[in-house]
Amino acid sequence: MSQIIDFRTSPERYRHWRLAFEGNVAHLIMDVDASAGLFEGYELKLNSYDLGVDIELNDAVQRLRFEHPEVGAVVLRSGKENVFCAGANIRMLGKSTHGHKVNFCKFTNETRFSIEDASENSGQVYLCAVKGTAAGGGYELAVTAEYIMLIDDRKSSVSLPELPLLAVLPGTGGLTRVTDKRKVRRDLADVFCTQEEGVRGKKAVAWRLVDEVIPPSVWVEKVASRAAEFAARSDRPRDAKGVKLTPLKREVSGDVVTYSHVKVELDRQKRRATLTIFGPVAAVPGSVAAAQDLGVEFWPLAVARELDDAILFLRLNEPELGLWVFKTEGDGHAVLAHDAFLAANQNHWLMREISHFLKRTLKRVDVTSRSLIALVEPGSCFAGTLAELVFAADRAIMFNGARAGDNRAPAAVMVGAANFGAYPMGNALTRLETRFLGEPETLVKAAARQGEALDAEAASELGLVTSVFDETDWNDEVRIMLEERASFSPDSLTGLEANLRFAGPETMETRVFGRLTAWQNWIFQRPNAVGEDGALKKYGSGVQPTYDRHRV
Amino acid sequence: MSQIIDFRTSPERYRHWRLAFEGNVAHLIMDVDASAGLFEGYELKLNSYDLGVDIELNDAVQRLRFEHPEVGAVVLRSGKENVFCAGANIRMLGKSTHGHKVNFCKFTNETRFSIEDASENSGQVYLCAVKGTAAGGGYELAVTAEYIMLIDDRKSSVSLPELPLLAVLPGTGGLTRVTDKRKVRRDLADVFCTQEEGVRGKKAVAWRLVDEVIPPSVWVEKVASRAAEFAARSDRPRDAKGVKLTPLKREVSGDVVTYSHVKVELDRQKRRATLTIFGPVAAVPGSVAAAQDLGVEFWPLAVARELDDAILFLRLNEPELGLWVFKTEGDGHAVLAHDAFLAANQNHWLMREISHFLKRTLKRVDVTSRSLIALVEPGSCFAGTLAELVFAADRAIMFNGARAGDNRAPAAVMVGAANFGAYPMGNALTRLETRFLGEPETLVKAAARQGEALDAEAASELGLVTSVFDETDWNDEVRIMLEERASFSPDSLTGLEANLRFAGPETMETRVFGRLTAWQNWIFQRPNAVGEDGALKKYGSGVQPTYDRHRV
Repeated sequence: MSQIIDFRTSPERYRHWRLAFEGNVAHLIMDVDASAGLFEGYELKLNSYDLGVDIELNDAVQRLRFEHPEVGAVVLRSGKENVFCAGANIRMLGKSTHGHKVNFCKFTNETRFSIEDASENSGQVYLCAVKGTAAGGGYELAVTAEYIMLIDDRKSSVSLPELPLLAVLPGTGGLTRVTDKRKVRRDLADVFCTQEEGVRGKKAVAWRLVDEVIPPSVWVEKVASRAAEFAARSDRPRDAKGVKLTPLKREVSGDVVTYSHVKVELDRQKRRATLTIFGPVAAVPGSVAAAQDLGVEFWPLAVARELDDAILFLRLNEPELGLWVFKTEGDGHAVLAHDAFLAANQNHWLMREISHFLKRTLKRVDVTSRSLIALVEPGSCFAGTLAELVFAADRAIMFNGARAGDNRAPAAVMVGAANFGAYPMGNALTRLETRFLGEPETLVKAAARQGEALDAEAASELGLVTSVFDETDWNDEVRIMLEERASFSPDSLTGLEANLRFAGPETMETRVFGRLTAWQNWIFQRPNAVGEDGALKKYGSGVQPTYDRHRV
Repeated sequence: MSQIIDFRTSPERYRHWRLAFEGNVAHLIMDVDASAGLFEGYELKLNSYDLGVDIELNDAVQRLRFEHPEVGAVVLRSGKENVFCAGANIRMLGKSTHGHKVNFCKFTNETRFSIEDASENSGQVYLCAVKGTAAGGGYELAVTAEYIMLIDDRKSSVSLPELPLLAVLPGTGGLTRVTDKRKVRRDLADVFCTQEEGVRGKKAVAWRLVDEVIPPSVWVEKVASRAAEFAARSDRPRDAKGVKLTPLKREVSGDVVTYSHVKVELDRQKRRATLTIFGPVAAVPGSVAAAQDLGVEFWPLAVARELDDAILFLRLNEPELGLWVFKTEGDGHAVLAHDAFLAANQNHWLMREISHFLKRTLKRVDVTSRSLIALVEPGSCFAGTLAELVFAADRAIMFNGARAGDNRAPAAVMVGAANFGAYPMGNALTRLETRFLGEPETLVKAAARQGEALDAEAASELGLVTSVFDETDWNDEVRIMLEERASFSPDSLTGLEANLRFAGPETMETRVFGRLTAWQNWIFQRPNAVGEDGALKKYGSGVQPTYDRHRV
């Protein structure tokens, strides 16, 4: 699995999904091409999936939001007759490295939350029409929908058979959505998750696993009418023009990956990637129409797409670069002006979409298992939206003043309205709220300084950065800190950061990424699942797995 | 490590702790005997600890509550001059099995929460006086106190050096208490947890790591006066007589472990332990004084002690018995009568203690990594406090009616007031509230049926049990279910149960047992920590560990 994994795709290249449109209802149809796995050595039978299938799903969900303002409801369904979706492909899992399994689950989870984000925040509500079996990851996918319909044909069912069949968890959010979203009674959930055969018909409704069972005779009409009901409630415009998500330009040259507003420099020897984000050059558009005309060139949208791609590219393709350094270059006031423009036009569907896309991209940063360091230097523009990177970082180090012989502005951090509500983390708090859980008075003080270019002393006093160094010490201190960080055990850093980044309240999202994922990662290391005689290896072989019977 | 681990001890047998009393202040003094490790092969230098040290601590905390009603404040401190506590012993960890490490951390965490429970609910508030270094588990212990004093002698410090030194987490609650209890700013927590040297003096206060630094010249007086202040606020009686926790009688004979009100039957072939709890035989005492005269013979206290010991005994000594079956025998009305007696006398220090002890024992059940099945049969007394075992179980199976030829009462479940508030789980909800998160109306219905002997039909209708079987099917259905459960992978069951048992809100406690523990367990499986070249193995050898640099 050493090929480059590319997250860029588009509907004309899809092998596994189809989109169909009927007025303000879209159909997102899963029809996996068994022969088109991302890697060699397995067939994606029965609508089972691998990372490649999910890359297309992520793209489709994104395009529905940006390219189809008219769509108010999306029906998730299968293009195959007797199966909805058989879940993650077992042979793929059996052959994957630990790291690939974990990254695959993380991306799949992010995509599932993006579906729920569309339902909740975009006026584009997902329904799911289950015909055939929805097993394991198939039911996990179904349960991302706000409304699940199950055909009552005596054979279609929903199930989470991972534990009995594979000795792993329904770990791509399934277990948590069963308890937190569907609120299934815990003992019934226990029965549901320990039986292979699943639940169908009225029992599936009684156990809260689906919302409605529908007889075959009225299946098509009923699904259509439910979709129409949900679509009718949407606030999305019926007559607006979408923004075409044209292919993202990315140049890889040696150890530098270049986009239009993002540059990534790889230093394999130091196990470090430096991500530099460039602030807006063009002025804020004069109107929403002008912004829309810019399309994917509009700075906030462009930067969201590029940063999003850079994060995924690095996560999957550069696992040894354990340290990400965030830098910015440009004019902080220009960032704040774009933030203000977005904020002032949140009643416009596209501006709202862009804000939520930025929010999701910043959430990807939060759950990335890399040490994140922000370096605030002269000439940088950590303001508003970009200042979120300072607050998302495990540490932020700030240069005190300007560099000798450098005529760029002294290092500054600027907070703006965007830092006080636009970008909640998975825990439903802003990054500043999370940061100042123990000192809410500092949050109030920071809010009073919006729009100011805060120098190192002020930013440090306000608790916005971790350390401040003068020019004399900067190079040595930063070098030592980065070298030290890169010397630690990657696993313990992953655990530490996953715990420290999410103080405060928990949500379904933090429970999926923090609790369920941690248990699944543990199980993904245990011989009972992944050993030579473990269930993932023996599945389908006709040979029973052998288990170490010690309870830990 | 195949000797039997016994949790029963008493102060005259302590090797590692001393208790000293000054009026209403107790001193709990850690003075570890380096040569008295629980196992061979390591020395407990510098007040480092192993499970044996923690068994004594658990006992001491318990005795302070029951035997010393006059104590309103407890000062945790070291009996050694230059060190407060160096944390868990590294050589012990390096030599332990995965299972022992996990069980050790769990018990240590439970003991730490019992300290906080005393502060919060018993009017026996813990302070910590740190003189010398409090490193790793040493600081984790300190931070269980409500008030931490640090001597300002230029050498005493607090630190969490696990990550840089050992490639593991401060996983016995430390990391979570830093964010959730002390509310340390996340980037400062990151610095604190990645440096070996720790923090001392005023910086420790500024970072919220301790509450007060005290100059050496006034150290003794100031610690004493703070303890006196806290003790003065206590509502515990100064002149009451404590209850002596006499040695617990436990007989092990073949595969049966017998206490006075609890019997444990081990079936190694079926990998199952059956715990039978016997209801009260004696009538409810006529007064609190009479109950106090019964001392450890008073049924609620006796059953709490015995069940608590049985849980710990099975957890540590019988890891292959992955299935615990709970049964009861006796008169449900008698259980409810004892519950009512306790509830009516919660203003009495001892009755309050007993209720909290029962609460903590039931919490041990919740975090036990065994599949828990309650069998509600004719003659059982799953009522009130004992009905909590039905609600704590992963599944409860109920016999419909009476057995032919058996003149005992038909199987019944009885809810009482104790099920609606006396025993919150770690998530701060009752077990019934957690169970009915998705159907709060059922909770109301169940509350209306208090005191009734609910037969199988009624209990099933109310969602109190999972399945009901008639006599014809009982034996086969129960056998098949238990055999099936015992056939699954133990690890995946542990992960499943840890996720399903704690639906709803999260607290510091659920985050320690669910999130932090899961990450630590994962790290405890990773070669970077536990491999031959990992940090836990290489610590102290002078050889640097070798890390796989892939980020997962």
